[in-house]
Amino acid sequence: MALDRLEQRLDYAFSNPRLLRQALTHRSYGQPNYERLEFLGDSIVNHVVALALFERYPHLREGELSRLRAHLVCQQTLYELALELGLGAALLLGDGELKSGGAERPSILSDALEAIIAAIYLDGGYDPSKAFVDRIFTSRLALLDPDKSLKDPKTRLQEWLQARKQPLPRYALVEVRGEAHAQEFEVECAVGERLRTRGVGSSRRAAEQASAADAMNQLESS
Amino acid sequence: MALDRLEQRLDYAFSNPRLLRQALTHRSYGQPNYERLEFLGDSIVNHVVALALFERYPHLREGELSRLRAHLVCQQTLYELALELGLGAALLLGDGELKSGGAERPSILSDALEAIIAAIYLDGGYDPSKAFVDRIFTSRLALLDPDKSLKDPKTRLQEWLQARKQPLPRYALVEVRGEAHAQEFEVECAVGERLRTRGVGSSRRAAEQASAADAMNQLESS
Repeated sequence: MALDRLEQRLDYAFSNPRLLRQALTHRSYGQPNYERLEFLGDSIVNHVVALALFERYPHLREGELSRLRAHLVCQQTLYELALELGLGAALLLGDGELKSGGAERPSILSDALEAIIAAIYLDGGYDPSKAFVDRIFTSRLALLDPDKSLKDPKTRLQEWLQARKQPLPRYALVEVRGEAHAQEFEVECAVGERLRTRGVGSSRRAAEQASAADAMNQLESS
Repeated sequence: MALDRLEQRLDYAFSNPRLLRQALTHRSYGQPNYERLEFLGDSIVNHVVALALFERYPHLREGELSRLRAHLVCQQTLYELALELGLGAALLLGDGELKSGGAERPSILSDALEAIIAAIYLDGGYDPSKAFVDRIFTSRLALLDPDKSLKDPKTRLQEWLQARKQPLPRYALVEVRGEAHAQEFEVECAVGERLRTRGVGSSRRAAEQASAADAMNQLESS
């Protein structure tokens, strides 16, 4: 795909197209590649989404805002956004990476999107990079349901199972390790007869939440 | 301390002084307090320091830049910067918090500094907030020694002990837990006769590094 077509999709025209090219270059293709840009882009997307949540939810507390951001700024979401922008066809990959499906790999696509955000920042400054992040996250922010995203994993798991008239999970303490001031708890979560997950945490409750989060992930992805 | 004296130290004059007041207000004093501002400020300082490192070290890789940033943007550094700016005397704390020494507490001072960064952003926009972060981190960036900060904990521990002509650390595998695809290693690091630390990781090497990092912390803080 020609870079000018990608620029149309990005709705941003680079003064220095070499920056866009670098943002699309995987290390398997050579230097300069997107790795350093990704570091900078990650910091920009985290900041801009933090600001969007801060402004959108004036009554949420700091911990809730943090959880919402972690929910929004994750590899899966960045990967989906990269797909929507059609980044895959524009990536520059080494032969081996290309043949093994690198252009569809979530880690590569999400990293390249972060690199593009940094490239826009370096090319045009803060305002266009912020506008770009706001634009690509508009639909995700609109879909965000704080009530759902903010419930803890045990609550979400319980409600998920109740909605499907399935028996509730059982939690069992497996092990307590370490000395009194630095104990580590391991808990098993059993859902029905088939699903068993384990969680570790610095309290029994934290370990239960971790095991429930794992169970919830497995149920939602199966 | 009057807010206008603090503004002189910050080298920034607020159009809306209520934002500065909020950034200095601990939750023990009431609403609105700095908690939400801290969330936003954290994202700004992480971004601005990422950019400073990106520009200052054009030859460092992403992982190295990340480690340098983690070294720079931590509670201890923010606490020291808050002390240098004299934030403690300007904090608004509830009676209990005030009596128990809240105005000197590292967590409160570092959080309030992050909140002030957000307050400057909301008051004056990106450029003044970036200029403020760049200014307060100037001395830290000048002191930064990538060679030292980037060495892994085992190497740093070894060099620390060699410099003091002490015997080298010994590492011993304590336990391997979990199934083959998700094993967890626990290693003990023994330094001389007195210091024993343990580290956990997804590989033996990672567990050794964790145990060495803990030993290094204990030696450096003793």
